[in-house]
Amino acid sequence: MTGHEEEFWNWYNDIIENADISDKRYPVKGMNVWRPYGWKLTLLIDEQIRNAMESTDHDEVCFPLLIPEDQFAKEAEHIKGFNSEVYWVTHAGLNELDIKLLLRPTSETAMYPLFSLWVRSHADLPLKVFQLVNTFRYETKQTRSFIRVREIHFFEAHTCHVDYEDAERQIQEDLEIVEDIMKELCLPYLISKRPDWDKFAGAYYTLGIDTLMPTGRTLQLGSIHQYRQNFSKPYEIKYEKDDGAHEYVHQTTYGMSERLVGAIIGVHGDEKGLVLPPKVAPYQVVVVPILRKDITTEVLNECKKIQEELKEAGIRAHIDNRDLRPGNKYYHWEMRGVPLRIELGPRDMESNHVILVRRDTGEKMQVSRADMISTVNEHMDKISSNLLKRAREKLEAGVKVVDSIDDAREVAGEGIILFAWCGSYDCAEQIEIVLNASILGELAGKHSDYYRNHYRSIVGDGEHRCAVCGLGTDKLVFVARTH
Amino acid sequence: MTGHEEEFWNWYNDIIENADISDKRYPVKGMNVWRPYGWKLTLLIDEQIRNAMESTDHDEVCFPLLIPEDQFAKEAEHIKGFNSEVYWVTHAGLNELDIKLLLRPTSETAMYPLFSLWVRSHADLPLKVFQLVNTFRYETKQTRSFIRVREIHFFEAHTCHVDYEDAERQIQEDLEIVEDIMKELCLPYLISKRPDWDKFAGAYYTLGIDTLMPTGRTLQLGSIHQYRQNFSKPYEIKYEKDDGAHEYVHQTTYGMSERLVGAIIGVHGDEKGLVLPPKVAPYQVVVVPILRKDITTEVLNECKKIQEELKEAGIRAHIDNRDLRPGNKYYHWEMRGVPLRIELGPRDMESNHVILVRRDTGEKMQVSRADMISTVNEHMDKISSNLLKRAREKLEAGVKVVDSIDDAREVAGEGIILFAWCGSYDCAEQIEIVLNASILGELAGKHSDYYRNHYRSIVGDGEHRCAVCGLGTDKLVFVARTH
Repeated sequence: MTGHEEEFWNWYNDIIENADISDKRYPVKGMNVWRPYGWKLTLLIDEQIRNAMESTDHDEVCFPLLIPEDQFAKEAEHIKGFNSEVYWVTHAGLNELDIKLLLRPTSETAMYPLFSLWVRSHADLPLKVFQLVNTFRYETKQTRSFIRVREIHFFEAHTCHVDYEDAERQIQEDLEIVEDIMKELCLPYLISKRPDWDKFAGAYYTLGIDTLMPTGRTLQLGSIHQYRQNFSKPYEIKYEKDDGAHEYVHQTTYGMSERLVGAIIGVHGDEKGLVLPPKVAPYQVVVVPILRKDITTEVLNECKKIQEELKEAGIRAHIDNRDLRPGNKYYHWEMRGVPLRIELGPRDMESNHVILVRRDTGEKMQVSRADMISTVNEHMDKISSNLLKRAREKLEAGVKVVDSIDDAREVAGEGIILFAWCGSYDCAEQIEIVLNASILGELAGKHSDYYRNHYRSIVGDGEHRCAVCGLGTDKLVFVARTH
Repeated sequence: MTGHEEEFWNWYNDIIENADISDKRYPVKGMNVWRPYGWKLTLLIDEQIRNAMESTDHDEVCFPLLIPEDQFAKEAEHIKGFNSEVYWVTHAGLNELDIKLLLRPTSETAMYPLFSLWVRSHADLPLKVFQLVNTFRYETKQTRSFIRVREIHFFEAHTCHVDYEDAERQIQEDLEIVEDIMKELCLPYLISKRPDWDKFAGAYYTLGIDTLMPTGRTLQLGSIHQYRQNFSKPYEIKYEKDDGAHEYVHQTTYGMSERLVGAIIGVHGDEKGLVLPPKVAPYQVVVVPILRKDITTEVLNECKKIQEELKEAGIRAHIDNRDLRPGNKYYHWEMRGVPLRIELGPRDMESNHVILVRRDTGEKMQVSRADMISTVNEHMDKISSNLLKRAREKLEAGVKVVDSIDDAREVAGEGIILFAWCGSYDCAEQIEIVLNASILGELAGKHSDYYRNHYRSIVGDGEHRCAVCGLGTDKLVFVARTH
């Protein structure tokens, strides 16, 4: 680990502790306690996900945690991929169980036995469901709050379709949902089609959703999978077609995890602490009374009125009336990333103003009381745009185009490397070994045109050549050290 | 099981299946799949709980699922109570774990090691947190959807206080919260102080929250526990007092489970299916277009406008524009318990009216379009009041006062028996054996005056005498067969 990375993790761990996000002193490694402020943030992220899923006609369900060993074992690749990282329940009460149960690492093998009962005819398709649950993976690497944990807060959507094309349309819809959700979280991201050896266990192909952390490494936030009929065959999920024949469904999944919280902390945070996107900030505005001994009550009452007005306008507002100096309160709420602060003192009251301070820029404004709500709303939008813009600039600056593995070596570890690859396993292996990095995959999704043009603008318009063997290719891939 | 009970369970199981509440074909006994409609209902109940907890300054947290065996074993009574019904994780991946982990049956032993770190001084008190999670108990009796399951959707509040009196005040607040939540669910209930042998494992005393099901048996929906210092001592949760001395905190808990869903189904349902309380109905209004071939589009558009207007007024509204006859749609949504139905046909459009139909009474009204929103809101309130009123009348009628065990024998199994008890274990045992029923406990909570007066009005004003031994006593107890 570089000094820079170590510095980042120290900052990250401190902020998680000091801003009351999570407590990692729970006596099981990698299983952390969500403290109220962090849990509220997470529930608000969940709400963004729910809204996006409901507006695209996905139904929310909740499947059991425990999966019987025989159901889990039905899809051979899947069990191979997960066997080394599942928790096994072997006993209940004083009895040994006849069939061992595992804690879901993901819910394919819990859901699909039921899907085979739910899907009968093409009228039942598409089936689009999702759930928000905790999943479990026995991580053996070093754990990190939100980023590598053993109990994972998780969102997973599962769909069944009449054919491959309809499943592909679902994946396009998923990509639009990713764009919507990530915009609310002000997080830039890259989509790439994972190489075959790195796809999800059982998938036909996998799209990864990655962002760039201040460590120079990428963080996978989620993924979208095309399963084709890989699961529907062993789980016998089939429907009757108009002609009476039976056909196995085509399936997709789309999942994201609490890594979104880790990304929000890492990507937006600064030396003062968290900087939260307004859409998911537990408090969007904190009101701080500036008291003078003789007129304490009036100022406090006015602050309460302000809080009420904000709440009525649908803004999450908190009033800090603790017996502390204003500076201490500023410090406290800046650390917790509250997007806007309103200060109100006797002079502001007299002149019918409030002071509005932005967390992202530190900008301080005098706002007339009458314009308060509209100005707060306007600045929440501006903060969202600004957070996304500056994070996107960092991500884009973090993508280095190279056309040879020697050039790549010089920038390895400083972000994401974009180059041409012939597609062969040998060249991939060499890239990964020489750079001590992973191939994230081929460009995909809405940003691929941008990066393809970017590559051309630097390397030239001719045929691209594999950075390792020099063979002609049209594959452009992202490579990075990953978390 | 009596024929009446069997009939009820047949109805109950059918309605759960037909109204898309839950699917019990999951391949682990007692672990059911929440289907979209049932899960939405449950999330709306959770929302009522969240609102009540937040307005009483409880913070929401989320603790890990897995508890290490050594933490679990710290409070002797607690482990004795739960040892025979916990699920054990003994292996992870290919390894056997050094310390076995259990799936939380309840979260005392997960939370309290952290509470001992969180509580330092009296400024940290009271500590009031809650969580909404699934818990696990290895039930060996016959399982029943929502009522006796092995994975349980669960709400649990945990508090720490400076002394016993403050903990007692918390219990009073909990009783007010119970009243608020149960009012929204239109569920009448009884509070009773459980006899010592039936209190929660580790508690100083337990208050049970019971309702009466149509089977004539009571169903415990939740409970409130006074722990005193029973847990704070083994878990070393203490605070520094002003004088520098250290004192163990006093603790309480309050929990309710998905049995609330079972009670809503059982208590309010009728021969047509579910009757849902408006506050938690996934759809509060269903709009059914009555189509005539020539003016289909106009009617459909107007129905969509109605749905939009309802949604804007904060009412959960669904439009059923499937290609089915209206009668089939009525049947479909009556079964699912939607509180109000709006029908709109060409003639209603012409006269600027809608037809409004109540699920609870079947009442059908012509309502002018201009009054629609206010009339819908008014009738949702009326439905809530009516559901609570008729359920409360049934509960009150189900409480039989007797003054001897012989009289009790004649009404055993027909509801709840109220009588005087001296408090001795011997008399209790005799009551329970002779009646094949359980002592719920002594009257407690806001309804105890009502039932005490009711007892006096039948048995007389003199000193009460134990129904078994005849000794004078002031203890009045509820006895019932329970689920």
